[in-house]
Amino acid sequence: MERALTRLGEREPGLQAFAHVDAEGARAAARALDAQASAGAPVGPLAGMPIGVKDVIDTADQPTALGSPLFEGRRPARDAACVALLRAAGGVVLGKTVTAELAAFHPGPTRNPHDAARTPGGSSSGSAAAVAAGIVPAALGTQTGGSIIRPAAYCGVIGFKPTFGLIPRAGVLAFADSLDTVGVLGARLDLVARVTAVLADRDDLVPEAWSSPPAPLRLGVVRTPEWDAVQPAARATLERVAGAAAANGARVTDLDPGPALAAATQAQRTVQLAEGALALADERRRHPERLSATLRELLDEGAAIPPAQRDAAHATAREAARELRAATEGIDVVLTPAVDGEAPQGLDSTGDPLLQRRWTLVGVPVVSLPAGRGPSGLPLAVALVGRRGEDAALLSAAAQLQRLLEGEG
Amino acid sequence: MERALTRLGEREPGLQAFAHVDAEGARAAARALDAQASAGAPVGPLAGMPIGVKDVIDTADQPTALGSPLFEGRRPARDAACVALLRAAGGVVLGKTVTAELAAFHPGPTRNPHDAARTPGGSSSGSAAAVAAGIVPAALGTQTGGSIIRPAAYCGVIGFKPTFGLIPRAGVLAFADSLDTVGVLGARLDLVARVTAVLADRDDLVPEAWSSPPAPLRLGVVRTPEWDAVQPAARATLERVAGAAAANGARVTDLDPGPALAAATQAQRTVQLAEGALALADERRRHPERLSATLRELLDEGAAIPPAQRDAAHATAREAARELRAATEGIDVVLTPAVDGEAPQGLDSTGDPLLQRRWTLVGVPVVSLPAGRGPSGLPLAVALVGRRGEDAALLSAAAQLQRLLEGEG
Repeated sequence: MERALTRLGEREPGLQAFAHVDAEGARAAARALDAQASAGAPVGPLAGMPIGVKDVIDTADQPTALGSPLFEGRRPARDAACVALLRAAGGVVLGKTVTAELAAFHPGPTRNPHDAARTPGGSSSGSAAAVAAGIVPAALGTQTGGSIIRPAAYCGVIGFKPTFGLIPRAGVLAFADSLDTVGVLGARLDLVARVTAVLADRDDLVPEAWSSPPAPLRLGVVRTPEWDAVQPAARATLERVAGAAAANGARVTDLDPGPALAAATQAQRTVQLAEGALALADERRRHPERLSATLRELLDEGAAIPPAQRDAAHATAREAARELRAATEGIDVVLTPAVDGEAPQGLDSTGDPLLQRRWTLVGVPVVSLPAGRGPSGLPLAVALVGRRGEDAALLSAAAQLQRLLEGEG
Repeated sequence: MERALTRLGEREPGLQAFAHVDAEGARAAARALDAQASAGAPVGPLAGMPIGVKDVIDTADQPTALGSPLFEGRRPARDAACVALLRAAGGVVLGKTVTAELAAFHPGPTRNPHDAARTPGGSSSGSAAAVAAGIVPAALGTQTGGSIIRPAAYCGVIGFKPTFGLIPRAGVLAFADSLDTVGVLGARLDLVARVTAVLADRDDLVPEAWSSPPAPLRLGVVRTPEWDAVQPAARATLERVAGAAAANGARVTDLDPGPALAAATQAQRTVQLAEGALALADERRRHPERLSATLRELLDEGAAIPPAQRDAAHATAREAARELRAATEGIDVVLTPAVDGEAPQGLDSTGDPLLQRRWTLVGVPVVSLPAGRGPSGLPLAVALVGRRGEDAALLSAAAQLQRLLEGEG
């Protein structure tokens, strides 16, 4: 804990990853855990681990301002379910990490730890930056479009958006009820798996419980209909990873999942905006002037989407999920670009969710795996996509791919 | 509004339907709407309608205590999305209606308006009682097991649990994320449809938008594997409604949907308890002694359910939904018992959710339709079950059945 606080003192001024830090509370929690351990009492699988919690996730002992001036100093009555589960397992909430406004697009002050002139991505901006800067080994995030995978990729850390519904959402800000997913950003896959196991209350997710990895690992490469929008460095990264995996024994095939999955990117945007306009009905009604212009316009767009178009987007989601299931028969994991390139210049945007949207729509688990550096020296990444409900298999396949890639160099 | 307040003054002392009443706020809102209307400004489709809001749904201007001493006086920062939508349409929140503890089973003080010695049902106890007593024409409820349909049936009002996800849940207490559904209790079907249209922001739900009803109406009767537990009066009610519908031109057939739908009642209980134990992780961790013994024991049971059993229950839900879709090809609506009998004696239980559980698990829309009186003179009801996402068709079929039954006597 003292290491985390020292690191925080060094890095936070230039980084602005935290919306709130509770150093005293974290020290007290760590001391209490030490005392429990000394007394021989069980302290839980995350005992003493300092964790950052995205500031759209309620904490009863720290403010939860949702990245919006509307909620400055807001004090929830309860810990979110995931925070309570974290604490019950010995995790210590070091502080609340910066989120884009209401988990959407308008950025907070956080900078990319690899280049202060660039965005860390978002909306889980502070969680990605805090892990990348070595302040905390893991942090909680949420994803509705690409809010875990994109910042994880831009900051060069592991990002895990589990299967929709795996981690309880009670006490987490709702933006789009049929998309919002709680997940974990972390320094290592095994840590991410351990934290997820606690948050989902599923002991089948810890590395020790993973079934032995398939041999050979069967990868299906999806270059996506947005391939033309992917920057050369990100394309090259995908090809390099696919090639290295094949060279190290993986069976790599190309997948073309079909028209509904192609349409899923646009359908995800429809669902996100239409449901967001409803979820934020109170803010739209009473305080529109206190929302960012970006968000206000997107929500106005969402509110104007007619019911038939919303129904069609949900139908696309169901059909895309079927297509993906069928296309991935005999495949262990999908390999696809995580982001379209390095973190863009500037702090006025969190980057483009284009490549993350479709996987969120279909509810499948996704891991962002760091994979080298781009032309400006910033992290690049690939995304691994698993089958719905098979989160342990995805994490295990990701670990196996990491081992194959380490064999690469 | 004055009528509602007068009625409240007469009935509330013996009824205890409200956890909080905001008479002054309601009068002010009604005056503001009058002034808007006088000025020729649009006032919305629910202009001036007094509405009760279940006390697990957040209101920024009234306390939201979740039916638990843990949250006495709790003041949310935001209106729940459904409350904001209601208000934007001119609806006036007269007050917060009594809920069973945390939308589960431990009852509040509310009495059945038809017999003060009997439960009104729950967990939307106050919403059902306030409508039945004529205090408000409509009230919001939530259902995770049978929390709208059961109290609506016991109190003799219309209850509507829409398709899962139709009404936004932002700002509503989460108990079981994959089951929790916001719905409406009301004095008449058309009112319920109008309020639902506002809450879902779907103008295709108002009666004027319903497509012309099928002729003849095709009813599929599901007597359920729990038929032996249904009391004679409730069985007779179902048979009488089916017979009267047939006599008045409906085509009535018997349905036996299959083994997964038979198993769905138990699977719903598994999902509800397992997800409830996670959603209420903070209360279980920090304040177990302030939960009722009933709830604490159920949550302990839920926390002990292993991941494989949770997965199996979700698989049952998917398979049961498929079975029901297949079994209802060529059927407009399923007719099935709403409850097992009249509201039971006593205020120490809200009755048995046995007959409501399976329909909640599969996410289909359900209407509870009052249908005569039982041997003790209390209301009985039938449930009408529609196809997922076809809420307007269900409401329209329910209205058609009501007309057929009126032709009965």
